[in-house]
Amino acid sequence: MEEVRVDDILTQIRDLLDRKNFVSLRHELAEIYPMDLAEIFEELPPDECLVLFRLLHKDQAAEVFSYMEGAARKELASSIRESLLQHILDELYFDDKIDFLEEMPANFVKNLIQNSPQEERARINQFLNYPDNSAGSLMTIEYVDLKKHMTVGQALARIKEIGPDTETIYTCYVLDDTRHLEGIVSLRRLVLSGEDELVSDLMNDDVVLCMAHDDQEEVAEQFKKYDLMAIPVVDGESRLIGIITIDDIVDVIEQENTEDFQKMAAMTPSDEEYLDTGVFKLAKNRIVWLLVLMISATFTGGIITHFEGLLSTAVMLTAFIPMLMDSGGNAGSQSSTMIIRGIALGEISLRDWPKILWKEFRVGLVAGCTLGIVNVGRMFLIGNRDYMVMLTVSLTLMVTVVIAKLVGGILPIVAKALRLDPAIMAGPLITTIVDALSLFVYFTAASLLIL
Amino acid sequence: MEEVRVDDILTQIRDLLDRKNFVSLRHELAEIYPMDLAEIFEELPPDECLVLFRLLHKDQAAEVFSYMEGAARKELASSIRESLLQHILDELYFDDKIDFLEEMPANFVKNLIQNSPQEERARINQFLNYPDNSAGSLMTIEYVDLKKHMTVGQALARIKEIGPDTETIYTCYVLDDTRHLEGIVSLRRLVLSGEDELVSDLMNDDVVLCMAHDDQEEVAEQFKKYDLMAIPVVDGESRLIGIITIDDIVDVIEQENTEDFQKMAAMTPSDEEYLDTGVFKLAKNRIVWLLVLMISATFTGGIITHFEGLLSTAVMLTAFIPMLMDSGGNAGSQSSTMIIRGIALGEISLRDWPKILWKEFRVGLVAGCTLGIVNVGRMFLIGNRDYMVMLTVSLTLMVTVVIAKLVGGILPIVAKALRLDPAIMAGPLITTIVDALSLFVYFTAASLLIL
Repeated sequence: MEEVRVDDILTQIRDLLDRKNFVSLRHELAEIYPMDLAEIFEELPPDECLVLFRLLHKDQAAEVFSYMEGAARKELASSIRESLLQHILDELYFDDKIDFLEEMPANFVKNLIQNSPQEERARINQFLNYPDNSAGSLMTIEYVDLKKHMTVGQALARIKEIGPDTETIYTCYVLDDTRHLEGIVSLRRLVLSGEDELVSDLMNDDVVLCMAHDDQEEVAEQFKKYDLMAIPVVDGESRLIGIITIDDIVDVIEQENTEDFQKMAAMTPSDEEYLDTGVFKLAKNRIVWLLVLMISATFTGGIITHFEGLLSTAVMLTAFIPMLMDSGGNAGSQSSTMIIRGIALGEISLRDWPKILWKEFRVGLVAGCTLGIVNVGRMFLIGNRDYMVMLTVSLTLMVTVVIAKLVGGILPIVAKALRLDPAIMAGPLITTIVDALSLFVYFTAASLLIL
Repeated sequence: MEEVRVDDILTQIRDLLDRKNFVSLRHELAEIYPMDLAEIFEELPPDECLVLFRLLHKDQAAEVFSYMEGAARKELASSIRESLLQHILDELYFDDKIDFLEEMPANFVKNLIQNSPQEERARINQFLNYPDNSAGSLMTIEYVDLKKHMTVGQALARIKEIGPDTETIYTCYVLDDTRHLEGIVSLRRLVLSGEDELVSDLMNDDVVLCMAHDDQEEVAEQFKKYDLMAIPVVDGESRLIGIITIDDIVDVIEQENTEDFQKMAAMTPSDEEYLDTGVFKLAKNRIVWLLVLMISATFTGGIITHFEGLLSTAVMLTAFIPMLMDSGGNAGSQSSTMIIRGIALGEISLRDWPKILWKEFRVGLVAGCTLGIVNVGRMFLIGNRDYMVMLTVSLTLMVTVVIAKLVGGILPIVAKALRLDPAIMAGPLITTIVDALSLFVYFTAASLLIL
């Protein structure tokens, strides 16, 4: 649905661009949603992007700019003339401005803000200093502030006056004279109430709020739990310093999920887009864990070396090692994924550990027995008629699956208890642990049953 | 932050409950956020939950009920008296009502709605029939409808009149006499405009919309891209049949992410919570893929059997099989995870495949060489001084990592091109493929270098 829309527009634009029909192009561009234009601009080569961007009305240019991302935006910012860039910056909401400045090199930023008033410059520097992933890095300073003693009529008049410059007017913040947050009131409440009612009677004074240094993941939890549209950010003396709106939180949710996916596949998380990330950066994010896991596999190798005597008398045992290791690894990641995800969504907490172990034990038994039985059939079909080997492999498979389920189920909980991120206890690490255990079970069973 | 809040409340409530102080309890409960109460009720044993629930004011009860989930809510619904349940149902927004009815057994639903008016019953049945994961299953029918010829003053009066019963008043829908959607106008726009301006001049008639049978994932994409608060759902003749609000979309985003996590760990996706899912259901969701992967490992076993002669003369080669397989598997899942996630977020599309192959090739070289070199040191340290074995293992490691990166990078794209879900091309499947390739490389290298 959406892809078609953008592709159609792109074809049309390319056509006009090729025919150098700039008048029609200007009209055409004015009709397009800024989000669609942002997407198109990210796909075009930088020079064409620049041509089109110059054809936009200044305000539309600012809006498109705010929706662009990554390398394309950086490129564009460095090629447009400074006066246009200044205008765009003035038009951006404060949180978008900070986002953009964070991406650009320090020198560029310094030049850009040196003409801003002292106060604005100080504030920009303060906001640039909030740690990545903190509530402070997400907030904006444009909001509607009301006073307790206002009537609904006065409040609506105030909204009309300052509303056009604020990111949202749907939640309004009631402040005292020293900017302490006394409560919030929704526009819904105001519009549905009588002109003469008092803000103090309509406002909610038990406000869900956060602090500038809170982790963005916790803030996102609040939004999900309380169905918020915006959250106020206060300082240590509960003075309002900014608000965070839901559109930014939707991005945070996706970003936190991406981080979990990356950690679970044994990578250092990064929020840069894949295509914008350089080869060495990508390699660096991946190599550390590959090395850790490779070196821990030394242990698995040691188990095999220990049983070399057994293997040289029964070399056909080797053929089942990959299957046993992979099944154990897969069974373990299934469990760890379920638990890691349950913890991330707040559905599973530390005190659930006995329930998890008991559940995984039974699931492991059902899955292990099924696999063991199917394995007998499989070995029979590929022509293996040595019943003791068959028994050894199927027994190991069952035990391995049960162990893998238990290990996969409990390690994320252990991580959580140690205040580590449960996501690091995913597939790759569990595979390494389960490999060693399953080989040990395998060779022990083989020693007893075959020799 | 949040956990503390709920835990505190829980302790307080337990205390009052133990002392059977129901009067204080009633006052206490009335002060608590419905979302917090819902969370507490889900944790309490059913009988205590029922006692507390009966102490709630009817309207608060309905609200708490709408935020509860899973087994606890089902249990509660079957134990409260029917008149209270009827009242709760009447208070719920239409989409929450449908969500609840979907969870309950068919008989229960039939009894419950048999006293509803004919028209309501027909509508409930229609909504229950929308497929899971479709836009229709998410929508609500309570919205503000306006007419084109209204002035802002008239529009605000209409909002005041019907607003209290609608889920959102922040986006209003402009309909003609046959309920065709002509445009939308935000409350922001209305409040910031003059009393006498016409809705037709303020409304946006290029509306981003969806159809009842659209997939919820596509709808969520629209919300993310266009920063929507709500989206209208229309039928084939572009008549408005409902709207979807952002709070439900936030849940969809998490649900779609959960499905991806589950598919990537080789499980049949399910949106039931882990602790609410039975052992056999869990086992069923996991066994299919475990079997598929076990049976494909037959192929890997075949490769080993093929090289049995080589292995029996150089049995120490076996010790490196786990490390080679795991490193290949891990390297491959890293790449596939990056690409699957990039596709899910719309950052990577089909036409990017040459860029991906080229990038993964280079990342694979960097990572492979690093691992190969470190491996020489590792083998030296564990006392291995056979230089040809060292060379064989390190060479295989390099080649395996490069192959794994290429396979992991391209398979999700192939899946996308075949209109399959890229998430199924994750770790477990890639591991199985890479296992076979890496063993083949290993034994070939060994045959050439060692024998």
